[in-house]
Amino acid sequence: MTTNLQLTADGKLKHFLTPEGLSAELLTQILDTAETFIDNTQSPRKIKSPQLLRDKTVVNLFFENSTRTRTTFELAAKNLGAEVINMNIATSATSKGESLLDTIRNLEAMFVDAFVVRHAVSGAAHFIAQQTAPHISVINAGDGQHAHPTQAMLDVFTIRQHKPDFSQLRVAIIGDILHSRVARSEIHALNILGAKEVRVIAPKTLLPAEIEALGVTVSHNLQDGLQDIDVVIMLRLQKERMTSALLPSESEYFSCFGLTEEKLKIAKPNAIVMHPGPINRGVEIDSKVADGKQSVILQQVSNGVAVRMAVMAMTMTDFSNH
Amino acid sequence: MTTNLQLTADGKLKHFLTPEGLSAELLTQILDTAETFIDNTQSPRKIKSPQLLRDKTVVNLFFENSTRTRTTFELAAKNLGAEVINMNIATSATSKGESLLDTIRNLEAMFVDAFVVRHAVSGAAHFIAQQTAPHISVINAGDGQHAHPTQAMLDVFTIRQHKPDFSQLRVAIIGDILHSRVARSEIHALNILGAKEVRVIAPKTLLPAEIEALGVTVSHNLQDGLQDIDVVIMLRLQKERMTSALLPSESEYFSCFGLTEEKLKIAKPNAIVMHPGPINRGVEIDSKVADGKQSVILQQVSNGVAVRMAVMAMTMTDFSNH
Amino acid sequence: MTTNLQLTADGKLKHFLTPEGLSAELLTQILDTAETFIDNTQSPRKIKSPQLLRDKTVVNLFFENSTRTRTTFELAAKNLGAEVINMNIATSATSKGESLLDTIRNLEAMFVDAFVVRHAVSGAAHFIAQQTAPHISVINAGDGQHAHPTQAMLDVFTIRQHKPDFSQLRVAIIGDILHSRVARSEIHALNILGAKEVRVIAPKTLLPAEIEALGVTVSHNLQDGLQDIDVVIMLRLQKERMTSALLPSESEYFSCFGLTEEKLKIAKPNAIVMHPGPINRGVEIDSKVADGKQSVILQQVSNGVAVRMAVMAMTMTDFSNH
Repeated sequence: MTTNLQLTADGKLKHFLTPEGLSAELLTQILDTAETFIDNTQSPRKIKSPQLLRDKTVVNLFFENSTRTRTTFELAAKNLGAEVINMNIATSATSKGESLLDTIRNLEAMFVDAFVVRHAVSGAAHFIAQQTAPHISVINAGDGQHAHPTQAMLDVFTIRQHKPDFSQLRVAIIGDILHSRVARSEIHALNILGAKEVRVIAPKTLLPAEIEALGVTVSHNLQDGLQDIDVVIMLRLQKERMTSALLPSESEYFSCFGLTEEKLKIAKPNAIVMHPGPINRGVEIDSKVADGKQSVILQQVSNGVAVRMAVMAMTMTDFSNH
Repeated sequence: MTTNLQLTADGKLKHFLTPEGLSAELLTQILDTAETFIDNTQSPRKIKSPQLLRDKTVVNLFFENSTRTRTTFELAAKNLGAEVINMNIATSATSKGESLLDTIRNLEAMFVDAFVVRHAVSGAAHFIAQQTAPHISVINAGDGQHAHPTQAMLDVFTIRQHKPDFSQLRVAIIGDILHSRVARSEIHALNILGAKEVRVIAPKTLLPAEIEALGVTVSHNLQDGLQDIDVVIMLRLQKERMTSALLPSESEYFSCFGLTEEKLKIAKPNAIVMHPGPINRGVEIDSKVADGKQSVILQQVSNGVAVRMAVMAMTMTDFSNH
Repeated sequence: MTTNLQLTADGKLKHFLTPEGLSAELLTQILDTAETFIDNTQSPRKIKSPQLLRDKTVVNLFFENSTRTRTTFELAAKNLGAEVINMNIATSATSKGESLLDTIRNLEAMFVDAFVVRHAVSGAAHFIAQQTAPHISVINAGDGQHAHPTQAMLDVFTIRQHKPDFSQLRVAIIGDILHSRVARSEIHALNILGAKEVRVIAPKTLLPAEIEALGVTVSHNLQDGLQDIDVVIMLRLQKERMTSALLPSESEYFSCFGLTEEKLKIAKPNAIVMHPGPINRGVEIDSKVADGKQSVILQQVSNGVAVRMAVMAMTMTDFSNH
């Protein structure tokens, strides 16, 4: 179902809701397109601003507040010449009792071209993509515990910069897999692109049942799990998990699953360390690791602008990197 | 008074505060200008973006929160190449105790070109237009229960698309006339443009005294009132009216004044149904009617962008459609 | 320390954090550059929009809410062709527990070019300038009670329009010197530019100890202090000072230190009256003075746009007025 919804009849990307069901070729096209937006000839690197979306309007439709994610999408759209309308829906239309569908119908009638949607309910972006007018593209900026596809693609983009041969790649995702839309989308993207192994490392209380069905190996012990690993992806620990009895305490979590310099030595010597941010220093990751020379966390942020530009360019125009 | 305030010495539109006192020729010029901004050659229709307001700055000066209205004005201004500054005054300058007039004086000193004003107090836009510097245009985006002229003009624009001969036109406005700035401005605009009849249909508690003086006929019964009607305009029912003892209950209101498919059959067969939004489904209008084939509610939203572009272009430049 | 931090190795302005430690030549260059952005050939004067910052991104990083200041910086940046991202940090990233430094690191990774910083803590802008990446400029939009350099420069710019010979200039700054970052920056800028005398006039409870060390003369009496004065700068009285026992009452303050037409006569006949805004009418200044013919308060606001454009152009580009 999701596969078809994201593609036009001739296989072009129309919406970007989840990596699930997309081909390795299409995901690679996103990565290659993103590459074209980074000017590697300059130091420091700059973003190119081809005005591909001139006269297009992008609506940031955020039902959950997230300044950081909203800002990267706003920058990406403006870099391509689009106008951006920021709508924080938590505090606006719906407070007058208008339904989600009426809000969507009204915005699409205003000749806008894309919705970037963040919503606390899994499936919200899919619902909007199903319901919206044919000329509008929907980009999922995170829906419940379901998917966060642009985050997954910027992670894969960053990995490819350092470890281009995915057929030999072993990736560990560590932390609260159960509640993480980022982890789900990473697992899908890495498997589609042919990673040799995606390993999840978490206490049992933070792993969904039947996680192996997603095509991952499982470890409940960080020291064991880090062996032979090329890429270490740490997940943010939501502090509210502590109070919900899924975890004993912050310090106990850190001692078992927090990444320190010492534990990182168990992974391959040239392993890279990633984190989707924002970081809880001293909870899931030690500052020395987060700021250390194996960390590519800030590269992820930079790449996020280029990857979001690529997704917007591909869904909103006939632009193609082929 | 209002007549002169809105016009330059040579009769050009300077501010747009209310349709009251303006000529049929001028209102028609707004409609014709709006028409030029819609590209009817494309499917779906697109808005043209002539950069008429390049290097102009429009300030959205909203003393009442309204994401929807603010967004259409922001889109209209950006479509014309203007910069837009959004100011939600409820939470800013006045919280430091600055007077409305000092806020206006400061903004005009910053070389801005127009204020789009929404305010809970009737007459606020007029006051600002009277006080502001000569090079600034004021556009009323709704003041108290007084006027909402761009809403009225987009309604008239939509009617003209379907019923171009106003001399034969009978329009019914249904609901809370008493508190509606939209109804007041619609009545003025329709009468100026020569509509054959403007009929208001409402319970006595939701009609102002001496409403006939505005040039309308009155009905207190929906079935009677809908006879011979070409255009049915439903007003949003503010739910707080219920608690203020003006109305018995939502369900009783719906049974008396709510528009259903069955009641709509009383109007002319090709009657169109309008609503300024946001809709209270099942309160003043049944979903089958709102989404039915006689509804032009979403066309109103689309036309709102073009009409607001027209008003900005006419008040802020020497642009003229003649 | 602050001197070097603001300048590149070859003496160009890199950040603008405080006038302190900068040369008269550099401050004069800011004033001269601002002059080039004002089109004095038009009536009313207009701001020129040279697209010097096209493809640059300015982040308004406001940890204290201030619509007025944020708006002038937003206008200044847009007048130069920059994209602007508004971040109200009080309600965003830090609520997820991210540190200030992580917020800065993330934003700079997004390829932005400047931070305009307002923060309640003295030294915040310096801290960010010390920590941020080399390609980023930091402009202080007010930090605690420390500095507000663009306000000081627009004040000096306004003074120069009326009183070009600083060697003969006597300026009085009146009111709550103790808590005023504006006063501190004005004192520094005026002394650097060679003003003959900067006199502070305030009750003892609103003067810092050892204020004379900043190079000012002191008066505790408005009538005495206004003698021979060319420029009268009134400071806004924060009403919370009343409740903190520093002041007896609003009316008593006004009778001692409020500026009236009568008291203004004590100053030189052609003295100008300034105020950084927002004004407390009837608290520190009488409306007749604020709106009178010696007042240049609204010219200050206009000049603020040009001065902020100058600071952005000088810090963010190789642009120079030489």
